[in-house]
Amino acid sequence: MRCSTPWRGKHAADLRERDLIAQLLAPLATHRAARGLDDDTAVWLPPLGRELVLTHDILACGVHYLPDDPPSDIAWKLLAVNLSDLAAKGATPSGVLLGLGLSAAEDDDWLRSFVAGLARGLERWNVALFGGDTVSGLAQAVLGLTAIGHVQPGSARARSGAKAGDLLWVSGSIGDAGLGLAVAQCKLPPDKYLLNRFRRPEPRLALGAALAPVANAVMDVSDGVLIDARRMAAASGLALHIELAALPLSPAAALHTSDDAARLARATAGDDYELLFAAPPEADFAALAAAQRLPLTCIGSFAPGSGLRVTGSDGNDCTPERLGWEH
Amino acid sequence: MRCSTPWRGKHAADLRERDLIAQLLAPLATHRAARGLDDDTAVWLPPLGRELVLTHDILACGVHYLPDDPPSDIAWKLLAVNLSDLAAKGATPSGVLLGLGLSAAEDDDWLRSFVAGLARGLERWNVALFGGDTVSGLAQAVLGLTAIGHVQPGSARARSGAKAGDLLWVSGSIGDAGLGLAVAQCKLPPDKYLLNRFRRPEPRLALGAALAPVANAVMDVSDGVLIDARRMAAASGLALHIELAALPLSPAAALHTSDDAARLARATAGDDYELLFAAPPEADFAALAAAQRLPLTCIGSFAPGSGLRVTGSDGNDCTPERLGWEH
Repeated sequence: MRCSTPWRGKHAADLRERDLIAQLLAPLATHRAARGLDDDTAVWLPPLGRELVLTHDILACGVHYLPDDPPSDIAWKLLAVNLSDLAAKGATPSGVLLGLGLSAAEDDDWLRSFVAGLARGLERWNVALFGGDTVSGLAQAVLGLTAIGHVQPGSARARSGAKAGDLLWVSGSIGDAGLGLAVAQCKLPPDKYLLNRFRRPEPRLALGAALAPVANAVMDVSDGVLIDARRMAAASGLALHIELAALPLSPAAALHTSDDAARLARATAGDDYELLFAAPPEADFAALAAAQRLPLTCIGSFAPGSGLRVTGSDGNDCTPERLGWEH
Repeated sequence: MRCSTPWRGKHAADLRERDLIAQLLAPLATHRAARGLDDDTAVWLPPLGRELVLTHDILACGVHYLPDDPPSDIAWKLLAVNLSDLAAKGATPSGVLLGLGLSAAEDDDWLRSFVAGLARGLERWNVALFGGDTVSGLAQAVLGLTAIGHVQPGSARARSGAKAGDLLWVSGSIGDAGLGLAVAQCKLPPDKYLLNRFRRPEPRLALGAALAPVANAVMDVSDGVLIDARRMAAASGLALHIELAALPLSPAAALHTSDDAARLARATAGDDYELLFAAPPEADFAALAAAQRLPLTCIGSFAPGSGLRVTGSDGNDCTPERLGWEH
């Protein structure tokens, strides 16, 4: 693992930070492949006869998280959003490489808290810290993470596999994280559950592994359930109909959701990190939902054609102009 | 592959940029594992019976490159500095994941040039674009890359393997990139060779593969040959003596290097991306150097003990206070 400081404007804080990183991160790198973060690369023997699933997601300060979010939660989320991609493939996580771009705002306390959150996440999901890079002196923090997992060859489901006649299902509840962001921004009264759903998403790893043999298409919901569902339909070359009234809401979100306009707000908010999947109509997920202790809700159906149609409680078309985080 | 824009301040340019990235990057992702960048992850069957070598390096605008460096060269360098880490392990590169953090300064022309440089590098080194992530609206560009290669199990040399009595060798010439930076900053007159050595380093992949069976320790020179050599000695638990007069200089660098003070400036400048390696004194690298068409120069020797001692042309100790990019 290597760290870099600017050509110009190097200052004492950078040196201190290097020591902090070496002292804080190296103890987490207990996997043999990491070589104690004392070499330029990790050297890893992947599980024999498995396909690797690889993803890289960035969280930038002021873009994906708020500057005053707790650093331990930022680390958790950085790990969780990447593992959520692995979950959609039914992959077992192996290890991560970390790209820490830091500004002057990330002081010693911030780093200690960040690393503590990272350590908890690595332990919880049994993931190795393989290595990475750090750079300081940036104008804002930009945190990148590469996650590597493994699957049985051929078992990873793409978003493009939905078939005409398949039903569309979603795990958990939708819209909590968007409301949690509003709580973090003091636009809504304090609500620990909603705030946690925004700051500490839970990658649906066990669910993804269970879905791989039965679902035709799986993806995670990161930009909003409507836009992500439309992407699945487009990749599969199908039309999709979603019934807004079927949207699964948590009790906390239900308090803020009394009409279709509010339901649309939940469905376009993003950051849910639930799994969205297509399965034949005969598939029954009641036992799986019970085993996972997680609601699995049918919210729509695929048909030949193209485009997304959303219908409201009155059965009328209420497809919104903006479906989610349209980039 | 996914792209993100800020919660606030989304503007037309972001949309245009997303299209550009999909249109420009997707055509490069021809490897089956990349799934056309149309899925959230890459799914890759690694070569059977091989160990993987993994590295992640960041290049930040204003830190690792200058804002007016040609974007195609920035892409080349982003790829090259990561492949240089693989080269030190003797690894064959397989694929990369790209983390593009962009500011308003990276317009359409910048992106087209960047992607063209990336395409040339991927083709030259036969590396697949597996996937990645993009985010726009940052205060400065922060470019991360994860590179994955493979080696025969057990063949990757660490920096910690040097033995007492080993000689220290370095490939190519040292200090060109530091002078090239001065050229780029208009502190030195134009010199295409030096500028290219700064902007378009050449990862020593073939040399690294040839060294793996014979060298005891290998690393690449990124922060300056003295500081990186000291790191090798420290990791190996040995003392190291370097003779400054032995430092290999290119003809272009020699013009700027008339005394030991200048030689020290070359040896502490960094960004060389040459290979530094320790080998038993009986090892003869003349044939390898000829085959690689690359000078291989003995610049020092390891002994029991600790610390780095640099001696000048007069044989006296001239170890500098600052050995390189000390982070």
